[in-house]
Amino acid sequence: MPPSLPSHSAVSRAAAAIPALARSASTSAGTAVTPNKPPPNKDHLINTYPAEAFPSGFQVASTHSGIKKKAGVLDLGILVSTSETSCSAAACMTRNVFKAAPVTVTSELLRNSNGKARGFIINSGCANAVTGKKGLEDAWSMSNTTTSNLPQTNKDNESTLVMSTGVIGQHLPIDKILGQIPNLIKNLDSSPKSWLDLSKSFMTTDTFPKLRCRSFKLNDKEIKLVGIDKGAGMIAPSMGPPQQPHATLLGVIATDISINSNDLQNALNYAVDRSFNNITVDGDMSTNDTILCLANGAAPGQQKEITEKENPKEFSIFKEELRSFAEELAQLVVRDGEGATKFVTIRVKGAPSYEIANAVAKSVANSSLFKTAMYGEDANWGRILCAVGYAPLEPNPISPNQVSVTFIPSSNLSNKEPLKLLINGEPHPNIDEERASEILKEEDLEIEIDLGNGQEESKVWTCDFSHEYVTINGSVSSRSDLSWFP
Amino acid sequence: MPPSLPSHSAVSRAAAAIPALARSASTSAGTAVTPNKPPPNKDHLINTYPAEAFPSGFQVASTHSGIKKKAGVLDLGILVSTSETSCSAAACMTRNVFKAAPVTVTSELLRNSNGKARGFIINSGCANAVTGKKGLEDAWSMSNTTTSNLPQTNKDNESTLVMSTGVIGQHLPIDKILGQIPNLIKNLDSSPKSWLDLSKSFMTTDTFPKLRCRSFKLNDKEIKLVGIDKGAGMIAPSMGPPQQPHATLLGVIATDISINSNDLQNALNYAVDRSFNNITVDGDMSTNDTILCLANGAAPGQQKEITEKENPKEFSIFKEELRSFAEELAQLVVRDGEGATKFVTIRVKGAPSYEIANAVAKSVANSSLFKTAMYGEDANWGRILCAVGYAPLEPNPISPNQVSVTFIPSSNLSNKEPLKLLINGEPHPNIDEERASEILKEEDLEIEIDLGNGQEESKVWTCDFSHEYVTINGSVSSRSDLSWFP
Repeated sequence: MPPSLPSHSAVSRAAAAIPALARSASTSAGTAVTPNKPPPNKDHLINTYPAEAFPSGFQVASTHSGIKKKAGVLDLGILVSTSETSCSAAACMTRNVFKAAPVTVTSELLRNSNGKARGFIINSGCANAVTGKKGLEDAWSMSNTTTSNLPQTNKDNESTLVMSTGVIGQHLPIDKILGQIPNLIKNLDSSPKSWLDLSKSFMTTDTFPKLRCRSFKLNDKEIKLVGIDKGAGMIAPSMGPPQQPHATLLGVIATDISINSNDLQNALNYAVDRSFNNITVDGDMSTNDTILCLANGAAPGQQKEITEKENPKEFSIFKEELRSFAEELAQLVVRDGEGATKFVTIRVKGAPSYEIANAVAKSVANSSLFKTAMYGEDANWGRILCAVGYAPLEPNPISPNQVSVTFIPSSNLSNKEPLKLLINGEPHPNIDEERASEILKEEDLEIEIDLGNGQEESKVWTCDFSHEYVTINGSVSSRSDLSWFP
Repeated sequence: MPPSLPSHSAVSRAAAAIPALARSASTSAGTAVTPNKPPPNKDHLINTYPAEAFPSGFQVASTHSGIKKKAGVLDLGILVSTSETSCSAAACMTRNVFKAAPVTVTSELLRNSNGKARGFIINSGCANAVTGKKGLEDAWSMSNTTTSNLPQTNKDNESTLVMSTGVIGQHLPIDKILGQIPNLIKNLDSSPKSWLDLSKSFMTTDTFPKLRCRSFKLNDKEIKLVGIDKGAGMIAPSMGPPQQPHATLLGVIATDISINSNDLQNALNYAVDRSFNNITVDGDMSTNDTILCLANGAAPGQQKEITEKENPKEFSIFKEELRSFAEELAQLVVRDGEGATKFVTIRVKGAPSYEIANAVAKSVANSSLFKTAMYGEDANWGRILCAVGYAPLEPNPISPNQVSVTFIPSSNLSNKEPLKLLINGEPHPNIDEERASEILKEEDLEIEIDLGNGQEESKVWTCDFSHEYVTINGSVSSRSDLSWFP
């Protein structure tokens, strides 16, 4: 599918990226990190697509409403389904106890509508979190004002979902927002530029807009998906269905497949657990994390709603496409992690269960000492083992003398031979320092940890911990305009 | 007690330190952090004591054995009990799955001797962790060579415990170490300089040696304690009795009280759970963490060993003194946290249980976003709530509309009035920005989080996250000589 080629080449880079580190802990030579080594430019990750790449039956618009100070910066956007068929909607939201108002309102809207929606409205610059009663009123009026300004339909249970991201503890400039809604609706269209602008209206500390398209065949019919997400800091999502909301991660996947709401929710839960819930930038789970999925059934030639019960084959094809697409979108957030200079895949295999593999991978992925070692391009496997060793497991199935650690070279390098550092709990007698160093210089790294105690595995994606991260988050001024909250 | 006055004034500063932050999340004004703001000088935390401040019946010595590259830097030390009465010994050690060889050996020595020891030998610069069979042989020879070179006694079950700290995955230069042991034993004495030198031989990335003395009265007899510890990074201890070892934190408390070994272990478990296990620098639990406690009964005028069963009153006095002393020693590690510019006390009150209060406090104390905000002197209570909201609690007893957050001014400031930022889940309508800013400039901070749902509380001590932390841990060269591992 040509239109989504750029994103596919991107994802295959990411997926196949089998990077590694350099210089074993046993080296004595060493070079200091250049202070404030700047993160690489991310512009090559901005994808654009022709009109035919986007799913049918959706229109979008965005504008500058004045939430963000800088004139002209997009901070408000809407997406609307124009399909004749009703639009199924599902969401996974933060499990943080302090749920932002838009999280609460979107959950209630989905419950009231039994998983139907007209579309969503999003603002950036202010999270509408910890804003008490007025925060809830503001979130409700964003939703209701949008719905009531849209052309009437006979699907009166279809409402407008709402998302916010930005600083915590501030009230929205609600009059500015409501004042822009008629204007937004007037400008709705489905042009590639409008889709890219919508993705820009999601941004806070993001350095590039995150927009991806892909398509797949289902019974010879082409189904299209578009995905937008944002996030750079306060990224360690744990999201579940609306009943148990948790987010500084915001994302939406819109598709023109026709699918039953409950099955869409099940497919989204499966996809989010294996994608967005397996990324971390700083280990901080936000108050607003939300991933929406809208399926409007507008793809030509579809007979009736897919259900898992009646169409198990079609459902599982869609579920896997959704997981793979969610993984691509989730990895973009890690690549744009605040101050990130590295993209690190932690693969834990040989575990008795997926949950154990996942807990060990997250323990390493969130270790400050490991992440600063990545920044220093330092193959400090001691820090990796240390983090494996304190993963919260009760009972703990890890036997130190069964654990192996291997750095697998980036696909960019000619020599694809894995570099073993630890074998069954014993350090490799003589590590090829030069090769390790060459491997570690790559932006992409993969670290394989084999627990030697089972057949299950899990992958988690993380970035490094840089001077720039401290500059971004240790600076009061960074909070005053484009806050990453949350 | 004049000798320990300096340390008491230090601890009362620390204990009474009720600091706070500045600038609420609702401010729009902001000032950027000066890049690489250097940590304050810590020399004022170096205490010296006269000979009479140290407990009776202990001798110490230290030397440069060549583990650390820099000539003359102390990297090997021993402590020996010279008391006629037998020396009770207890330990709390890392729960990390990857226990370093000295942790395993010390655990076995304590089991074999039923909690008796002659003393200990310690090296810094190399952790002897993840070093396989040879690592265990090396740890055993450090212990056995020391014991066999000491004057014979009739207490043949009293062996020499062993501790190591430094880089992971390297073998000890064991010949250099063993070659120095006779020399060390020849130089044993109890002079204040030798005690200070011993504390220097513990150091890795520490910026100052950590030595404290105190004494207390027990039935009109004076009992003395000396404490030494080290640690600056890989600090998030969770230590239990030898059966379940876990450390980059190393510490020893030697006292001349006479107490039964089992009761000494129980007192140490109680003290460590409320002190060393409640500090964090970077959330990384090390492979070597060890706290030893030696009680040689050499204090004049003691009749017989104290036991909890027969001397409940005396035992509880000792237990509380030990807890308070361990708290003082633990706080020194946080004050010397890698790159630390702030000392932050997180007090969670109004909790249904100590465990819940402790889990919430640790969630905040380990949040990268919270710690960088402290570095930026930014009263970003949104990040505090966020971390409260993702504390791992099942079931979760926290009701957002019952949670209050207050910054309590440092005792150094004239205005002692607490500064409320969040009251029952609602932001304070108008925070005094100037006062918040004044409060946050102090090095010491206390943040009070009231869950409004019970009577229990817990305190955790943490530091900020600075550019300097990244420089220290993102630099390969920092690992090549004085490694903080572990």
